[in-house]
Formats: sequence, C-alpha cells, structure tokens
Amino acid sequence: MPAKTANLVTVKHRVSTDQRVAANKHQSGVLWFTGLPGSGKSTLAIEVEQKLFEMGWQVYVLDGDNVRQGLSADLGFSPEDRTENIRRIGEMAALFADAGFLVITAFISPYRADRDLARKASGERFHEIHIAADVEVCEDRDPKGHYARARAGEIKEFTGVSAPYEPPAEPEFTVDTASQSVDESVSSLMTYIEKTFSS
Amino acid sequence: MPAKTANLVTVKHRVSTDQRVAANKHQSGVLWFTGLPGSGKSTLAIEVEQKLFEMGWQVYVLDGDNVRQGLSADLGFSPEDRTENIRRIGEMAALFADAGFLVITAFISPYRADRDLARKASGERFHEIHIAADVEVCEDRDPKGHYARARAGEIKEFTGVSAPYEPPAEPEFTVDTASQSVDESVSSLMTYIEKTFSS
Repeated sequence: MPAKTANLVTVKHRVSTDQRVAANKHQSGVLWFTGLPGSGKSTLAIEVEQKLFEMGWQVYVLDGDNVRQGLSADLGFSPEDRTENIRRIGEMAALFADAGFLVITAFISPYRADRDLARKASGERFHEIHIAADVEVCEDRDPKGHYARARAGEIKEFTGVSAPYEPPAEPEFTVDTASQSVDESVSSLMTYIEKTFSS
Repeated sequence: MPAKTANLVTVKHRVSTDQRVAANKHQSGVLWFTGLPGSGKSTLAIEVEQKLFEMGWQVYVLDGDNVRQGLSADLGFSPEDRTENIRRIGEMAALFADAGFLVITAFISPYRADRDLARKASGERFHEIHIAADVEVCEDRDPKGHYARARAGEIKEFTGVSAPYEPPAEPEFTVDTASQSVDESVSSLMTYIEKTFSS
C-alpha cells in the first residue's frame, strides 16, 4: 500500500469538547426552556444570550424563528410532527453543545417523553428549565394574539387551549414568570447559569 | 397593560452574525465537502478542524459519525432519504454559520440539486469544495472495504458503484486527492481557508 493511500486510514482525532471548553473558558451545554405559549421562553432566551455574549461566551438560541422555517420546515403541529420536531432539535442542540456552545432552546416542547429524548441526546450537559406561568397568565398576555385565535378555533392543536402541556416533573431549574418581571427572571437565570457553567 | 406584561412584547435583539464574527476574529461559513466514498472528505475535514482550532478558530465538523446516528437516524440511503439527509444538514450548517462557526460538512452529497439547496440555506457563506478523486482511485483505496462489499452486492445504492455521483459544476475550490498526499491536500485547503475566512 503506497504511503499516500495509507495516510487516508490513519486514526482521526476530533477536537474534543473538553478542549473546546478549555478554549472558551466556560462549560458547554443545553439549556432546554419549556413552557406554555406566552410564558416568556423566547424573550428570556434572547435576553440571556445577549448578556452571555457580552461576557465573551459562545452562546446561541434555537427557537421557532430559526428552526421552523428551516430544519423543520416539513413539519406541522400534529403530535407526531411535534415529536419529530423536538427530536431533531434535541439532536442538533447536542451537536452545538459538543462543539462547545451553551445553546438555549426555546420551544413549548409540551410532551415529557419528547423532552426526555432530547435529554438523552445530550446526557449530563442537558438542563431542563421550566419557564413557568399559568395558562391564565399566558392567555392574559397573549403577545401574538394566538390564544384568542385558538379560542376562536382559528388555530388548531394549540398548547394550553386545545392541546396538552405536560410540565416537567424534575426540572434542573424553574423560572416563575407569572410573579417575576422579565428583569427578575433574567437575573435568576443568569445566577443559575454562571453558577453551573462557569469553568 | 401592566409593565410586567408589556416587557414581554418588546422587540427582541438577537446577537448578530457580524457581532459573532467580530468576537471570533474570523469569518463564519460553511465548507461543504463533496466527493466519492474514499475521496478523503472526513480525513481532510478532521485534519483541517484540528489546525484551525489550534489557531483559535471556532470550527466544527459535521459528518456521518455525528449526524447519521442522531439527527438523521430515521433515514436510510434511498435517493429520497439522501435528499432529506442533505437538506437537514444544510439547514443545520446554516445555523452553525449563523452562530459564528466555520462548519465543515463531510458527506458524499451526490446530487447537485441537493447541494444547491444546501447552498440556498446559507447564501454567500456557502463554499462548495470538491474533494476530487476518480472512482478507480477511491475503489483502489477502499479504506472501509465498502467498495468491495458494494461490488459483491452486499451494500445497495452505493455511490460510485450502484448509485450516481454528480460532480460540482462550479465548486468554490477543488482539492485533487488523487494526485496529492493528505498533507498537500490539507495545505492547499488551509491556504484557501485563511485567504477566504480570515477577518
């Protein structure tokens, strides 16, 4: 076998996550936000991303805005499609964490079994964060008018109205957005993140 | 509307890719490697990743090892499944580039139309790199023994043997791995990357 050919089968060494963590000077992981529509998931994710970026962290938000029209453009909102959507996001988030990122996912992710599958994809790096507010509070806010449209029957299978939400049984952290302001919620999240992901 | 509620609908500001590029001190983008089985895609991707990481770059390789058992675990190797596999990788790579990474994808990606779709997902950040070697050369190397098994009919729809490969018409860069050693190929890639993605 000539040398040029032999080279192609030498053992490959990927850059490890530990090496990336050392270079980035913070732990990597998945902050999996889950909660009802209007609970504040996306708002808090983007606020926290901004703060961590300013601290020099490698941080990225996956949410409906950048996933639903791309990776999951072929999926709707039936239970099967929601499950597949969350499965893909769980796998993608695991790769972002493997690449050294602290990735924040902001999806309703209403089914416990789906979130458990996402946890499995990332293992110990997975942190389930319950963005908690009662459906009454969320419906009262209704920032996008979706609850009103769901009540009118214009949106089908809307979580909290015509589709179920299964709250986490043992989340790593809970943010009470019903009684706390956005600033207070961001602050409590930042404390949790700095405590957990600083290296 | 009370202040706490109003806060939730304030305009959100994502961290932009430009901000990430400025912080990382290199451009982000997708290096889309395409070529026959055995052409050297994965080997070169991992070698280049190592070198760029040592230079302090945010770089990550997506290949069969980390995608086929996760994000695309539900897909096989039929033309339809290959197309869907490449579509998902194209969308995921676009998000990695959006997040500031130089991401290297190492997949056969045999169909021109599929690669064009991946290009569309990333726009100007997409660089198609042809890892070019004749099927005779690749089959002679056969690092995993797949060509032999394909010839024996043990692997169906194997690119280069029983499934087509459509070479890129206008790749941004071509690496001739038939006549160059691995070191020479890595070197030519590094020159291209530093020229194109340094900031």
